[in-house]
Amino acid sequence: MKKKVISEQSRNSQRIKLDVNNMFAEKVGTEHGFTREELNQLQERIRQADLKIRQQRPGFMELPAQSKEVVAEIMALVAEKSGAYDNFVVLGIGGSALGNIALQTALNDPYYNYREEVRQGRPRLFVPDNIDPVRFNSLLEMLELERTAFNVISKSGGTAETMSQFLIARQAVSEQLGAEKVADHFIATTSKDCGYLIEIARREGLKTFVIPDNVGGRFSVLTPVGLVSAAFCGIDIEELLAGAAYMDQLCQTTDLWQNPAYLNGSLQYLAYQQGKPLSVMMPYVHALKDLADWYRQLWAESLGKEVDREGNRVNVGPTPIKALGATDQHSQVQLYMEGPYDKVVTFLEVEDYGVEAQIPTAYRDIQGVSYLGGHSLNQLIQTEKKATELALTARGRLNTTITLPEVNEFTMGQLIYMLELQTALVGELFNIDAFNQPGVELGKHYTYGVLGREGYTHKKKEYEKRPPKSKDLII
Amino acid sequence: MKKKVISEQSRNSQRIKLDVNNMFAEKVGTEHGFTREELNQLQERIRQADLKIRQQRPGFMELPAQSKEVVAEIMALVAEKSGAYDNFVVLGIGGSALGNIALQTALNDPYYNYREEVRQGRPRLFVPDNIDPVRFNSLLEMLELERTAFNVISKSGGTAETMSQFLIARQAVSEQLGAEKVADHFIATTSKDCGYLIEIARREGLKTFVIPDNVGGRFSVLTPVGLVSAAFCGIDIEELLAGAAYMDQLCQTTDLWQNPAYLNGSLQYLAYQQGKPLSVMMPYVHALKDLADWYRQLWAESLGKEVDREGNRVNVGPTPIKALGATDQHSQVQLYMEGPYDKVVTFLEVEDYGVEAQIPTAYRDIQGVSYLGGHSLNQLIQTEKKATELALTARGRLNTTITLPEVNEFTMGQLIYMLELQTALVGELFNIDAFNQPGVELGKHYTYGVLGREGYTHKKKEYEKRPPKSKDLII
Repeated sequence: MKKKVISEQSRNSQRIKLDVNNMFAEKVGTEHGFTREELNQLQERIRQADLKIRQQRPGFMELPAQSKEVVAEIMALVAEKSGAYDNFVVLGIGGSALGNIALQTALNDPYYNYREEVRQGRPRLFVPDNIDPVRFNSLLEMLELERTAFNVISKSGGTAETMSQFLIARQAVSEQLGAEKVADHFIATTSKDCGYLIEIARREGLKTFVIPDNVGGRFSVLTPVGLVSAAFCGIDIEELLAGAAYMDQLCQTTDLWQNPAYLNGSLQYLAYQQGKPLSVMMPYVHALKDLADWYRQLWAESLGKEVDREGNRVNVGPTPIKALGATDQHSQVQLYMEGPYDKVVTFLEVEDYGVEAQIPTAYRDIQGVSYLGGHSLNQLIQTEKKATELALTARGRLNTTITLPEVNEFTMGQLIYMLELQTALVGELFNIDAFNQPGVELGKHYTYGVLGREGYTHKKKEYEKRPPKSKDLII
Repeated sequence: MKKKVISEQSRNSQRIKLDVNNMFAEKVGTEHGFTREELNQLQERIRQADLKIRQQRPGFMELPAQSKEVVAEIMALVAEKSGAYDNFVVLGIGGSALGNIALQTALNDPYYNYREEVRQGRPRLFVPDNIDPVRFNSLLEMLELERTAFNVISKSGGTAETMSQFLIARQAVSEQLGAEKVADHFIATTSKDCGYLIEIARREGLKTFVIPDNVGGRFSVLTPVGLVSAAFCGIDIEELLAGAAYMDQLCQTTDLWQNPAYLNGSLQYLAYQQGKPLSVMMPYVHALKDLADWYRQLWAESLGKEVDREGNRVNVGPTPIKALGATDQHSQVQLYMEGPYDKVVTFLEVEDYGVEAQIPTAYRDIQGVSYLGGHSLNQLIQTEKKATELALTARGRLNTTITLPEVNEFTMGQLIYMLELQTALVGELFNIDAFNQPGVELGKHYTYGVLGREGYTHKKKEYEKRPPKSKDLII
């Protein structure tokens, strides 16, 4: 990691921007657009919500300031293991995989795994995420285990998918390299002192990183959950945290017109209340496509809730949708332009891609092609974004734009933190607990029951007592 | 391509199944579930819709029967070029990319591009799809052009993204290998005798494949658009078409209780009418994740329409969502379980993954982990699917399941054809044109105008006259 002395001025030039013009009546018309007055009416609730958030002090808000030691510990391991691995495999699912993938796609070369010359001795990254047997078997067959590190990530150590992956990978290492080699090839990232994985890590003598108890899976990308694999792949994790800290500073104000997380959150909330429950995130930067997938978990799992804080049944929750420009102009934009008025599109764009791709001039007599010559892919994709934005706006379709000066660690840190805080705010506005996920328990317990986990026999019985299916409804 | 003699019996054992039990009141309760009577009331409209579809005879319905010559032509090229290429690149976007990706993910090894031993001399496949300059530059830098084939796919030859990619790639080949080598490295897949690409192909002497004029982009996966790259990567394209033909036979009946495309389409339509506009496709088979993305275009672009056939403004259109089991149990299922009752989930499952991934027994005294031992990833993912299905059903959440005996060419052909016909049916029920996409024109025309294409100066003026943004709404 290069050490940089970064001036405040250059920090400010890397500040991400939020443009909410096209949420307002003056741009999209009065039928769907909001007025400033409607926003102002939310101001007092925003202040209250901010107070409640800061009282709860969810763990993700403490990470930017507290992570110096963690960064040092991670970097020490990366230095110690320099050159030891050709492959780094993350064994985790959901919040223990989506952030890792998002960081890698955003901050490393698009073909990083294929290109030794861009890796410069760093390992390839694999995040199998799912437990599909075809995929997991193929991965293990492909990897030279002698040159592979696995980071097993589970706070409780009870995540069935992750622990199954671990058991299989551990046996493969043990059989091929010897049981005494397990500690050279596995890292455990888990709760500090409770749960199954920390117990296993102690027995096996694994290097261990801690997931703070007050940070939930979907808010954990800036803990070792996301940082370890990032650092192994050459991403500057200190700058990620600096970006988050910078956004934290910008979001100290409770003036909703000045706080990007609160301004965007308020507008998303109002849109939901007015019959627009679909929140589309549409980057026009290929590097941000998996960030949109990470956001999808953050938004859905935090805000999709059956009961509010008083126990009233509310069945609330916007549905996040990931899209991708320019690709989805050829797939989803027809629906966004002409379908129901049920969506808000959040565009992500970048000012400087870092490279230019010039389109050469050719076929001068074929005007339907030759006009492209002399432009660049940069101009084309940026123009298409502006054109789609303008077309949607002309049709009264709500949209906002988040602009990154560049895609780098500092801007990614800002974006991640802003979206996390925005989610916490909308949770408060819905008066729900944005940090739990009670709805996933039932399915898990059925699985535990069927597979014979102690204490879940009653769930197995319940599962087995399900009424039979009607044969004529299976064709 | 191995020639197989396949009996009718073995065909039937490979028939995909549709289970709609959990759409009905007896399973999900009367508040959200349908009755058989409600379905029966649609029967006459289904008959009318079927009549209209068969009168229009959309091109995709003719493909299974008419493609023998096309298959032969493709296989002849694959044979001729055997061993010539290490890389096959598809230059296309939307309907000229999503189907290619879906077939590859479904039918080849998950790490095909990395594993020479599974490729057996066949080329790696790259579908850059997007025009992001970072990504496209990186791809061209990485590929050894001497050993690379490009298939340029655009019916009109006017697709700005694809033609830009082509101009850049053609220049790279021309500069590195010599202008006379262009024809050795490019294939054109386009309209037979109109458009810019066929003109270019003639001048350059490119091998050309035809996209039938009556097949739109999102219905074109079983034309050379999808078949050429599939065949180069060893996929049995004849079997794909045989699967589509088999499903076409199953769908000859207009009895909605017997026709899988019509039964599923009717239920999706009823759900939409009853306030459930979100259509989630959630495979519990990693191989089908990109099929869900392909479906996303099919469903959104076909059914998202502003006006009906009589010109009434309807702004209709369900929103397709791709999800992935078991991964999204840790991301989206909380929302599906507890959020608004606005979704129908279509599960995709497979009976036989073709491999087993055994989970070894270990840590016998740690019951929260050891219960996994002795099971397999197959059991785990299949149990999780059934558990999620049961939990959703218990909460009154509508869902259906499509079961594939195996993921192979024959079952994929069935699934593709069924989803296409289902889309056509729902278009009829909405009384809209499912085969156009007028909503994407405005954004395209702005882009043409800004980039200086002849005939679009007025759009440039319109684009430039957009009202200025309020500075205080950009923070």
